[in-house]
Amino acid sequence: MMKTISESRCFGGVQGVYAHDSAVTGCAMTFGLFLPPEAREGPVPVLWYLSGLTCTHENAMVKAGAQAWAAEHGIAVAFPDTSPRGPDVADDEAFDMGQGAGFYVNATRAPWAAHFRMWDYVTDELPRLLVNAFPVDEERQAITGHSMGGHGALTAAMNLPDRYRSVSAFAPVSHPSRSDWGRRQFAAYLGDDESDWAAHDSTLLMRAAGFPGEVLIDQGTADAFLDRLMPEALAGAMAARRQAGQMRMQPGYDHSYFFVASFMADHIAFHAEALWA
Amino acid sequence: MMKTISESRCFGGVQGVYAHDSAVTGCAMTFGLFLPPEAREGPVPVLWYLSGLTCTHENAMVKAGAQAWAAEHGIAVAFPDTSPRGPDVADDEAFDMGQGAGFYVNATRAPWAAHFRMWDYVTDELPRLLVNAFPVDEERQAITGHSMGGHGALTAAMNLPDRYRSVSAFAPVSHPSRSDWGRRQFAAYLGDDESDWAAHDSTLLMRAAGFPGEVLIDQGTADAFLDRLMPEALAGAMAARRQAGQMRMQPGYDHSYFFVASFMADHIAFHAEALWA
Repeated sequence: MMKTISESRCFGGVQGVYAHDSAVTGCAMTFGLFLPPEAREGPVPVLWYLSGLTCTHENAMVKAGAQAWAAEHGIAVAFPDTSPRGPDVADDEAFDMGQGAGFYVNATRAPWAAHFRMWDYVTDELPRLLVNAFPVDEERQAITGHSMGGHGALTAAMNLPDRYRSVSAFAPVSHPSRSDWGRRQFAAYLGDDESDWAAHDSTLLMRAAGFPGEVLIDQGTADAFLDRLMPEALAGAMAARRQAGQMRMQPGYDHSYFFVASFMADHIAFHAEALWA
Repeated sequence: MMKTISESRCFGGVQGVYAHDSAVTGCAMTFGLFLPPEAREGPVPVLWYLSGLTCTHENAMVKAGAQAWAAEHGIAVAFPDTSPRGPDVADDEAFDMGQGAGFYVNATRAPWAAHFRMWDYVTDELPRLLVNAFPVDEERQAITGHSMGGHGALTAAMNLPDRYRSVSAFAPVSHPSRSDWGRRQFAAYLGDDESDWAAHDSTLLMRAAGFPGEVLIDQGTADAFLDRLMPEALAGAMAARRQAGQMRMQPGYDHSYFFVASFMADHIAFHAEALWA
């Protein structure tokens, strides 16, 4: 059962917020979905936007400025939450662990395994729900994200290259198995065997196989979290793999949504080209 | 003394947040200022954005999507707060009274008169501070706003027609002296003599004199607050005055920032034309 929380007209389309009981995470989940004007005529391509630490479905929906460009290109944008939530869901005092910090994995360890199954939620349950309930085209999906969500987008695309036509990221957590944004969380969610982490590390996935299409990554040079994001590891892996695409180091930009918004037009145009090809 | 809270690169310019001790409101005030890339070369025109009920300086700064278009047109955007704030400042339990609801007037009645002087703050103290501290051109100012802030923008422009080259508004509180968004607040802030309210009622100001330039107003037809905004009163006054400009009724749009963002490009282009003329 899905419940409509709100629907607002936006750039000629509709920005909706919906809630549903997730079988995968075992709790109520809320997501945003922007549908462009073209969705009134039939299914449209969909771009997934995965958010970063502490975010809900709402942050990017209200701050990233994606709707203007999505409307222009006739593509939908889906904004999932970043973790299961609620009083019955395990949590941690740290902002980068537990609720708001699902890291887009299926946890296998207590107390997280009961609800923290964001990998299955974002790559399986929510896409099926969207395709069934809204005019979005299952065959035309692309994915992007910011910070932890950039990690989610890159790992989803490299693990499921037939699913996503294109992938991009804003300041992604690029090498979590070697980062303070990754090691503690993967140990808690997935256990101490680091071989179980490799499928969720973009640098390792890039070294192993890369992505069949082009990859677009933007990273601000004034980002306060560069030591945890480790763009140099992913950039090296991209170059060594001869991965088509580009990592753009953007002078003076920080980690905020002001950075994300500044380059959103480029990212949506990049995805639109692949989605409408 | 002004304090820099944050500065983030944004669309090639800088989105800053600053705090200062206001002599007018008698408390610390925080504001946002976006400077486009051109500000590095010298003073640029400035568009004032006045926010609505419950908003701080932050809401429009992160949600309205103004920076993309301001950067394109080379104009600064100033985002003041909507009221004095702090534990020593009078307040009210209602969301539309007291802190977050200054209504852009100088209160003359206790307990409000001590701090609630948003008219002087927005039209005098903050413009002087901006002109002194940042590369903004005193001779090229324009003003817009949303809801209570649309009221503020229209009343500022019609009272100070030599100050502002252009004025626009999103879903403005258009006739506060006849509205539940106005009567209670004006009685509390200004007293019971309704002749003291007239200078702060856009419909009455439009009937009396109008604005020497063009006026642009957007109003969503699905706005839940139409009974309090009273666009029909202002539209009638504009037509009777033969006021140059337009009120656009936008089908299906509500009162949210999704509405504001949808038409921000139009408003900034409108102001840019006047500011660069």
